[in-house]
Amino acid sequence: MHYISHQKDIELLFLKSALTLDNPFNNTEEILDWVQKRNEEVSVDIKRIPFDAMNSWRLDKKKGAVVHSSNKFFSIQGLEVVTNYGHRKTWDQPIINQPEIGYLGFITKIFNGVLYFLVQTKIEPGNVNYVQLSPTIQATKSNYTQVHGGKTPNYLEHFVNATKDEILLDQLQSEQGARFLKKRNRNIIIKVDKEIEPLKDFKWLTLGQIKHLMKKDNIINMDTRTVISGISFGDYSRRTLNFHNVMNFESTSVENELLTSALVNDQSFLSFNQIIYWLTAQKVKYELSIKNKSLMDLKDWTISDSTIEHKDNRFFKVIGVNVEIGNREVTSWHQPLVEPCDEGVCAFIIKEIEGVLHFLVQAKLEAGNFDIVEIAPTVQCSSVYLEKEEQQLKIPFLKEVLNAKQEQVIFDTLQSEEGGRFYREQNRNIIIKLGDDFSIEVPENFTWLTLNQLKKFIVFNNYVNIQARSLVAALSYKN
Amino acid sequence: MHYISHQKDIELLFLKSALTLDNPFNNTEEILDWVQKRNEEVSVDIKRIPFDAMNSWRLDKKKGAVVHSSNKFFSIQGLEVVTNYGHRKTWDQPIINQPEIGYLGFITKIFNGVLYFLVQTKIEPGNVNYVQLSPTIQATKSNYTQVHGGKTPNYLEHFVNATKDEILLDQLQSEQGARFLKKRNRNIIIKVDKEIEPLKDFKWLTLGQIKHLMKKDNIINMDTRTVISGISFGDYSRRTLNFHNVMNFESTSVENELLTSALVNDQSFLSFNQIIYWLTAQKVKYELSIKNKSLMDLKDWTISDSTIEHKDNRFFKVIGVNVEIGNREVTSWHQPLVEPCDEGVCAFIIKEIEGVLHFLVQAKLEAGNFDIVEIAPTVQCSSVYLEKEEQQLKIPFLKEVLNAKQEQVIFDTLQSEEGGRFYREQNRNIIIKLGDDFSIEVPENFTWLTLNQLKKFIVFNNYVNIQARSLVAALSYKN
Repeated sequence: MHYISHQKDIELLFLKSALTLDNPFNNTEEILDWVQKRNEEVSVDIKRIPFDAMNSWRLDKKKGAVVHSSNKFFSIQGLEVVTNYGHRKTWDQPIINQPEIGYLGFITKIFNGVLYFLVQTKIEPGNVNYVQLSPTIQATKSNYTQVHGGKTPNYLEHFVNATKDEILLDQLQSEQGARFLKKRNRNIIIKVDKEIEPLKDFKWLTLGQIKHLMKKDNIINMDTRTVISGISFGDYSRRTLNFHNVMNFESTSVENELLTSALVNDQSFLSFNQIIYWLTAQKVKYELSIKNKSLMDLKDWTISDSTIEHKDNRFFKVIGVNVEIGNREVTSWHQPLVEPCDEGVCAFIIKEIEGVLHFLVQAKLEAGNFDIVEIAPTVQCSSVYLEKEEQQLKIPFLKEVLNAKQEQVIFDTLQSEEGGRFYREQNRNIIIKLGDDFSIEVPENFTWLTLNQLKKFIVFNNYVNIQARSLVAALSYKN
Repeated sequence: MHYISHQKDIELLFLKSALTLDNPFNNTEEILDWVQKRNEEVSVDIKRIPFDAMNSWRLDKKKGAVVHSSNKFFSIQGLEVVTNYGHRKTWDQPIINQPEIGYLGFITKIFNGVLYFLVQTKIEPGNVNYVQLSPTIQATKSNYTQVHGGKTPNYLEHFVNATKDEILLDQLQSEQGARFLKKRNRNIIIKVDKEIEPLKDFKWLTLGQIKHLMKKDNIINMDTRTVISGISFGDYSRRTLNFHNVMNFESTSVENELLTSALVNDQSFLSFNQIIYWLTAQKVKYELSIKNKSLMDLKDWTISDSTIEHKDNRFFKVIGVNVEIGNREVTSWHQPLVEPCDEGVCAFIIKEIEGVLHFLVQAKLEAGNFDIVEIAPTVQCSSVYLEKEEQQLKIPFLKEVLNAKQEQVIFDTLQSEEGGRFYREQNRNIIIKLGDDFSIEVPENFTWLTLNQLKKFIVFNNYVNIQARSLVAALSYKN
């Protein structure tokens, strides 16, 4: 059978690309300049407009939802939620319903033995800085099946015609359960051997460069982060790892410790089956019951001409906007966007347990989750909890994250959520490494996973949430 | 870390139990006698009654559903289904809605180095023969959380108080997607060390005995089959397997070939990731949209005083029954049951590919599926397709299954579905092994998995359907 070596080849290709920061085509400074220049070039104008003034979109009072005239794309509907999880046992909320599964895909290609990812500078209206680095393709199913005709997305034919051997990764991945109703995208990476010319706004980057660029605020978009979070670098016993010398760089750095945690499969706090048992218990314990409800009838939410918002000005607002993009040629359209009321905080606490770095995860329930709970970062909350100390104490481990010493902080940047649906939403992504004084004993809805185990769960759909995957994507294995 | 040896210990315990047919406490003949005697002793009387005559249950015309007066247990509601899968693109149907996750659990214990399962002879009204061998516990969440008070199920305290080290298996598993709306049960196996006295109607059996008893019709109930299907016997490279001599019996039997397929992790038609990619493509390709609908309004279904049935007398009927169980002391109650119009056929074709047995699976969509498609047996259909040759041709591979030669048939028995919900529903479970003349090329919604790969998918909830798991449970590794 050839597949085993094929699979190992793929993993080693990914690993080599993750460890390559030198790119003879586009060094990282040039990429930053490219993004900045594109950002300066584009003119983006976003104006809030009343729902009534939107072309093609409307707040349909009878349906109780914000819908497109074609009934395609997405809609924003109301939801009544009942659960036995957390402080609030029942609430109403608007939620984005986008039942179509879209493509988020990278074309990759080997140059001089290194795998490069074809990245584009993509403008999205909601982005904090309008242009961020996105996958080669972001397409809805209507796009790629060409149901409605229209312009074919660039490079689509490569994905549609990909053979089994060209597919390096192909997974279904969830998006924000607090904002989307069971939304999933197809995350795909293909490798092409034939010549391929980067179009305007496209460039070749190594995986190491993409990860390195996540150390800057708001450069790598959410779609890029979700796709690369699913990449596995292999599965080794500790003995094999040492023997084959898979890792050939200095062994004391945190990058090396992280890579060890990603690769080693026989040293962990829980066995893989025990993690399944923990999740089973969480899914049995927590109940999630949701019911469609008209936006007009949502408890605690008010609707004005141009905004749907919570009475306490919390969570998020639904707004209508007029988007204008371009300089000489201007493209413009109307659409609804979801605007957060606060920044979020997503943080992993990591800690060495018997020689391997472990990630402290929680089983988190959100209204739009496909399967009750997903594996989430140690801390995932709104920044309103940061303001006062008694608020901080409501969120387990938030205090530890906020009080981390500088040398404990491995990662701390702002990352944007999807700019096609969210208006300037960014979350602070933090990873801190704590020592022996941080207890291994945690509440029953928390547990410790190695990066190898986290990556194995990411392969299966609806196990690891986008906030956790975004942090996994941020991990870099070479400084 | 101790867990690796702990995990291996568990797998070897399961394997040894699966290979043990000699039971000094209860040999297999005695068990058959026990089941037969219990069957002769019990008096079960099932009478059809009008829905109006049911105590505690009613056909609620306003709700459009058959419901219990407490709104607990389960209900039977209507569903409108739209899909792009299969011949029928849209249909209405009744479906059982049982949102509570129940326990299906075995207590196991080691005697003389062998793991024994505590099995009970359980009476269920819908069983073909009323008494079948069931897990130690079958309990709803209301039962085991004692929400409503009432009698505690036998042995419940062992499950509720099980420690991490006592849990040998704990998985969420789906039930029939054509009959149940996203129903799942918690499948759990615990090992107790302290003394435990089998109550009346309980006995200790080895896993090998349970599997051996599946060679008889309708002895092992569905709940037993689903729990034991999740048992893994380990994960070995071919080299390690040969080296450690895990399998120490004759090497030419089909039992040995099946065990090899269960254990070997480095020889297979597709890599594990490639199976994920195949499933991703299937989940993206097929759409499933369901909507609640009143039973009163279901297209093609008619409702009489005592029956909800399809106009062509196909699929299944919903009936009301009066159940009386007992001899001197009689217990009686009313409840709705689902009565099939035909027997079903569930069959695996297996075939050696490059030295390892592979199972031909399909991605199958059913209305109540949790996640669009699940991995199903090669053939899963109603026996109506068996009657005429042109009908047979509508179901891929049915002809091959029906025309298998005697020496190709590994397994062929009748197995019951759950007798608490279904009235005398039994499916023919078939496994046939074909040779080189059967092509490895199959339609795109089919593919080949080793038993090791199938077992890995079973660990994750909602990947492998109950029909496929029932067949996996039937595989025995010692004759």
